[in-house]
Amino acid sequence: MTNSLSSTLASRITEQLSQIVLVDPHSHINPLSATAANLADLLGYHYYTELAHSSGLPKEQIEEPGISPKEKVARLMTTMRPINNTVQWSWMVDLCQNLFGWDEPTIDQKNWERLYDLVDSKCSSEGWEDVVLKKSRVESIFLTNDFDDPLEGFDLKRYVPCLRTDDLVFHFAKPEVRKRLEACSKSMITNLTSLKAAITNRFDHFQSKGVKACAISLPPSFAPVKISDSSASEALEDILKNGVSASTASRESLSRWIFWTLADHCNEYKLPFDLMIGVNRQVYPTGVYQGQDLYDSRVSLIQYAPLLNAFPKVTFPISVLASVTNQELVDYAWIFPNVVTNGHWWYSNTPSIIAHDLRARLEAIPRTKQIGYYSDAYKIEFIMPKFNMYRSILGRVLADEFVANRGWTEDACVELGTEVLRGNVERIFG
Amino acid sequence: MTNSLSSTLASRITEQLSQIVLVDPHSHINPLSATAANLADLLGYHYYTELAHSSGLPKEQIEEPGISPKEKVARLMTTMRPINNTVQWSWMVDLCQNLFGWDEPTIDQKNWERLYDLVDSKCSSEGWEDVVLKKSRVESIFLTNDFDDPLEGFDLKRYVPCLRTDDLVFHFAKPEVRKRLEACSKSMITNLTSLKAAITNRFDHFQSKGVKACAISLPPSFAPVKISDSSASEALEDILKNGVSASTASRESLSRWIFWTLADHCNEYKLPFDLMIGVNRQVYPTGVYQGQDLYDSRVSLIQYAPLLNAFPKVTFPISVLASVTNQELVDYAWIFPNVVTNGHWWYSNTPSIIAHDLRARLEAIPRTKQIGYYSDAYKIEFIMPKFNMYRSILGRVLADEFVANRGWTEDACVELGTEVLRGNVERIFG
Amino acid sequence: MTNSLSSTLASRITEQLSQIVLVDPHSHINPLSATAANLADLLGYHYYTELAHSSGLPKEQIEEPGISPKEKVARLMTTMRPINNTVQWSWMVDLCQNLFGWDEPTIDQKNWERLYDLVDSKCSSEGWEDVVLKKSRVESIFLTNDFDDPLEGFDLKRYVPCLRTDDLVFHFAKPEVRKRLEACSKSMITNLTSLKAAITNRFDHFQSKGVKACAISLPPSFAPVKISDSSASEALEDILKNGVSASTASRESLSRWIFWTLADHCNEYKLPFDLMIGVNRQVYPTGVYQGQDLYDSRVSLIQYAPLLNAFPKVTFPISVLASVTNQELVDYAWIFPNVVTNGHWWYSNTPSIIAHDLRARLEAIPRTKQIGYYSDAYKIEFIMPKFNMYRSILGRVLADEFVANRGWTEDACVELGTEVLRGNVERIFG
Repeated sequence: MTNSLSSTLASRITEQLSQIVLVDPHSHINPLSATAANLADLLGYHYYTELAHSSGLPKEQIEEPGISPKEKVARLMTTMRPINNTVQWSWMVDLCQNLFGWDEPTIDQKNWERLYDLVDSKCSSEGWEDVVLKKSRVESIFLTNDFDDPLEGFDLKRYVPCLRTDDLVFHFAKPEVRKRLEACSKSMITNLTSLKAAITNRFDHFQSKGVKACAISLPPSFAPVKISDSSASEALEDILKNGVSASTASRESLSRWIFWTLADHCNEYKLPFDLMIGVNRQVYPTGVYQGQDLYDSRVSLIQYAPLLNAFPKVTFPISVLASVTNQELVDYAWIFPNVVTNGHWWYSNTPSIIAHDLRARLEAIPRTKQIGYYSDAYKIEFIMPKFNMYRSILGRVLADEFVANRGWTEDACVELGTEVLRGNVERIFG
Repeated sequence: MTNSLSSTLASRITEQLSQIVLVDPHSHINPLSATAANLADLLGYHYYTELAHSSGLPKEQIEEPGISPKEKVARLMTTMRPINNTVQWSWMVDLCQNLFGWDEPTIDQKNWERLYDLVDSKCSSEGWEDVVLKKSRVESIFLTNDFDDPLEGFDLKRYVPCLRTDDLVFHFAKPEVRKRLEACSKSMITNLTSLKAAITNRFDHFQSKGVKACAISLPPSFAPVKISDSSASEALEDILKNGVSASTASRESLSRWIFWTLADHCNEYKLPFDLMIGVNRQVYPTGVYQGQDLYDSRVSLIQYAPLLNAFPKVTFPISVLASVTNQELVDYAWIFPNVVTNGHWWYSNTPSIIAHDLRARLEAIPRTKQIGYYSDAYKIEFIMPKFNMYRSILGRVLADEFVANRGWTEDACVELGTEVLRGNVERIFG
Repeated sequence: MTNSLSSTLASRITEQLSQIVLVDPHSHINPLSATAANLADLLGYHYYTELAHSSGLPKEQIEEPGISPKEKVARLMTTMRPINNTVQWSWMVDLCQNLFGWDEPTIDQKNWERLYDLVDSKCSSEGWEDVVLKKSRVESIFLTNDFDDPLEGFDLKRYVPCLRTDDLVFHFAKPEVRKRLEACSKSMITNLTSLKAAITNRFDHFQSKGVKACAISLPPSFAPVKISDSSASEALEDILKNGVSASTASRESLSRWIFWTLADHCNEYKLPFDLMIGVNRQVYPTGVYQGQDLYDSRVSLIQYAPLLNAFPKVTFPISVLASVTNQELVDYAWIFPNVVTNGHWWYSNTPSIIAHDLRARLEAIPRTKQIGYYSDAYKIEFIMPKFNMYRSILGRVLADEFVANRGWTEDACVELGTEVLRGNVERIFG
């Protein structure tokens, strides 16, 4: 076929996939404040503050306490031209045009004030949240909830609780984390038994609110193994006594024990356990808020073999931070029944990397074991442009690889795309 | 050129490359039973059993002892729909259509019984083996033979012996391996001298049968170095006494000594030594047969520098399991006269990965140092669809990179493709 | 758009980018002998000698002392056919056609003697250097100067000094290196203070000659950290006494101390510090001259986090040897204000790898933080064909990703390409 046919076909597939009503299986939305309040809330997304900072704007100017939202936007807009090539910026232009009705091809230092006012008026309009979700064709959104989140005051059908467990696994030695766990579970943690009971209490609480997944982000060095109760007991004793001054060995032992205990609970509560593998926190500690984390791409899923073998009934939707790990992810999902690929995470959420990783997944993993995409958004306005990016790549890959190279029909492509975008989310998370 | 011209050109190049009579330089064909006996033999290929299992079919159902071939197919067909997006499945459809004359676009739960009968009748027809090879345009096929294979009862021109050495290098501590070596070499292994003599005996045996290569698959951690005879002697003594309970140090020392001794023999017998680098065995030990192995992509060819430097006269056709190692492979083949790239192995044998790896090879390594492809097949029916996949990718890469981007003629592309597909196999293996 | 439009568009963008007058920000040009003297000087480039050797030509024949340039070419031409698929060879054909006016489509054993004479006559013609630079549209070229280079006898505007520091960091334990440093700085090095003073002397010398960058190539294992003066003092004492027989610990400590001291000087002298990360020297020690180095792709930029955090005012243009490190490079440049991507280095300077790495950069890093390309050339004749290769890939990526997929205008693409090709070089190096 000619490329014009191929690109028309890709557009047509993308268009059909855009009709699907979505469940967004991972976000950081605060359901009590799901939409942006103003343009500063949108431009304040770490993707823009970190790129502005990377382009030369001092952190002190970006994060100066007490500046007005408009002043914040004014400062950020001074360094948006250097980032207007980035796909991150294209999300902003897309959402301004397609959600807010912005009528110019760009956003720049000359026109942003008019945009500021436009966003202000829309955000404060009646039912803006419903408008955004409707325009974005989003039915429900998975959250990322702290273990002590009361999960109250919002529609649990629209905003689906997920239990985020980084604090428990990696920061339990901090006294404030233990106190938070004691407070919400209404118990004292003095030994392994009471620690496990507190964790069970949290699973009960989340289950009562319709939790759909347990989730955690993991550094490249993490390698889960089962720790004996006696070793874990000693480690806990050290930590209860010494907090973050406990020995590294104790902290690592207890991390692993808690992680394994969470997997045990996922097994018992029949919850998928989302693993987000590969991030090093605070590699650039003087960077802007949420713009400090990077990674070491030397990580292997073989580190997770003991876990995958020990919990055959737990589904592990796995995200990897670096594209170099994608082939392992494909191949572990190809072999292990309980491994599922999950979206395109953070530094791998840019078009050339998505296209590369997506091709490798679609051609080798059972179609039922691929969760296409999640937004990872902090404000619901970002769901649409991110999914737009993904859908257009998915449309092109389906047109190129499946129709042009393998002779599939357009309908068969749309069916596969639908399964990856929506069907698998429902089946896997229930 | 327009894409329609480009894709017509790619098809034309592919078509010309499809006329070449092949030598398949690596397979697991059993020459005494080269063709499938029925559809269960085809669907029983680990690519289908492991994907069926990954999609949810219990191993116990797949591998239940005593079930009939037809029952096995019936069970597997219940989970073929979830894998019908995979390229692995496309091989099955291709071979059914193009070897067996299957006349439907798909194979599914509604029509498989008719296919079962069709395959049955073809497989039991007179001269099916010749038919398959002729339709596949395959002249000869390299085997993977155990060191104690008698290499008798088959046509040594059509089925070319290759000495597989994994057992010797990695399992010599198992008493049964030693006993097999003693039995076939008619000798007692009591020290390094007799061990080396037994190995020489095997090379003599294989040479008398027209062996064309020595081959081995290697875990990511393996790093060959020369072990002194005195260290190896001590290690052998430990192993002869203690078998698999010998110390790790002894087992690693003897592994390396045997590996180095094999390379010495390759040098003396002028045999290429195929290295297949990167597999971890039994990462998923409860997976289906041959569906348990995965890998750790953190491997480097620098681990092989001592070997490559020590044996400048031995050609090492190298396959890597993970695509991330392909650039190193390209660059080691670019510099080392004795390194040759060899096919697209296993988890890297899917279209997007082949295309990526192939481009990098064709643009940077001498054309004489690239063995394009091997089937790795267990039944000769799979040679054709796998080579079809490869040839169509090769055709597209030649059309896009060499004609469109570099101005080559179609004839020059076909000449390059021919060299990579066939010419180099002959020159390198003799 | 149809592919014919797309490829016309790509050509048009490439053509416009070809009009830009270049500053080549990294080369190995000897300004006292910038052009080739004859065809042997061109074919003697390590890209051809190493590929000839890799294809079977013995090093002894290539490097036989005393052979005439014509004899050297005659020998090399016997193995150019096996490498005529490589992009490296395409540079040679391009420069012969477009700089020397070679009128045949290929260079082969039948026609090379006529080319030899043609090159001879051009190279010895009046003003050849000016002709080459004018045809190549090159205004100035950065050099790679030893620390004791007098930097005299050439036009400092055209050939811009850069201080190469590998010898200081990695070979200071060799007495001859110390003596060279003592000689050029006219000082005795007896302790840290005098060592630092000698380094300062070199920065003063280079600054007086208009130095634009400090540069170093680094092995995969290198991980910079600040070494205390007391540890460094002890290490220096060991090295002054024992030279290369000093302990590994001493040599590593002093390496790191010198490296950190160089970064301190870059900070003080406001010089970018080019880091070229990932090469292992002499992996193939019996290879041809400059054809012995390879690498271990298992390297991470996290090894450089302490450096990047310690010197926020120093710009680090970073090159990585293996494409697997490109995503980390993209993401470190995305977050760290002082990290800039720098060209496509050596084994990553082939079309499929450039395209892959370039796409990931253009879509995620601020446009102001990408130095598109440098030639790395030893003779100025190679600048044009290498930049031609890069520009045509850049044109295609801009046409495909920015126009076709993101709706940019052609002008906006040319503006982005211009910034990456030229604008950033000026702004970053001053």
